[in-house]
Amino acid sequence: MSYDPQNPFARILRGELPSIRVYEDDLTVAIMDIMPQAEGHVLIMPKEPAVEIFELSVEGAAACMRTTHRVARAVKAALNPPGVLIAQFNGRAAGQTVPHVHFHVIPRREGDALKPHAAVQADPAQLREIADRIIAALPRDIG
Amino acid sequence: MSYDPQNPFARILRGELPSIRVYEDDLTVAIMDIMPQAEGHVLIMPKEPAVEIFELSVEGAAACMRTTHRVARAVKAALNPPGVLIAQFNGRAAGQTVPHVHFHVIPRREGDALKPHAAVQADPAQLREIADRIIAALPRDIG
Repeated sequence: MSYDPQNPFARILRGELPSIRVYEDDLTVAIMDIMPQAEGHVLIMPKEPAVEIFELSVEGAAACMRTTHRVARAVKAALNPPGVLIAQFNGRAAGQTVPHVHFHVIPRREGDALKPHAAVQADPAQLREIADRIIAALPRDIG
Repeated sequence: MSYDPQNPFARILRGELPSIRVYEDDLTVAIMDIMPQAEGHVLIMPKEPAVEIFELSVEGAAACMRTTHRVARAVKAALNPPGVLIAQFNGRAAGQTVPHVHFHVIPRREGDALKPHAAVQADPAQLREIADRIIAALPRDIG
């Protein structure tokens, strides 16, 4: 699929749209989902332009996993949810809404239904507060 | 969480329970889900014993991603589903059913509801046939 350089995540990566970043390295960025499906919902994306994971380089996929793994451990440590869902959607049929590869890290609580995907905007001050707790809990390991 | 060496995936990794493998390397194994949520549902797991992703080493997580990325591309190439969902559940609250870290690669079609998780056993001959198509489509890249 051809990549649209005006998609919202491309614009966030270029700094043209605001975001609350919890982590960044040479190959990836992690931001708070502004329409979270649960408190502490983080998105991890490669800087490499790719619509779906099939188009992403092996190096880009590995970098996404390193960051997703790191963020998942931080979310667990900071918020201590009983469950954590990691998901990555390719294609509208799989639930993808923004055409730039991204991984979801979503805290889960038993019997707590997920909010609809990309539906309700969160309070920015509350997102900032949760982001700061996640940032403080980021593991310091190499990779 | 303490690791149960008698969990079904530990037994599959030791060869004590049968499985239909589509890929294996030093650190990971990919098998057909015998109770698939959709045709072409593959599970990727590390050989390293870990219940949840938080306990998995950085190296083990990276290896899972390499294999998941490789299998996702093969599933897309072999079966050409319009969507592909990648998911990894930590904790019962997130939907985890087997206490050994694993990633799901699940083909998705618009309007096609996922079958319930781990509910209906598939026909082994049909699983074998789909596995062979996925194996034939595995990318040959390094990593």
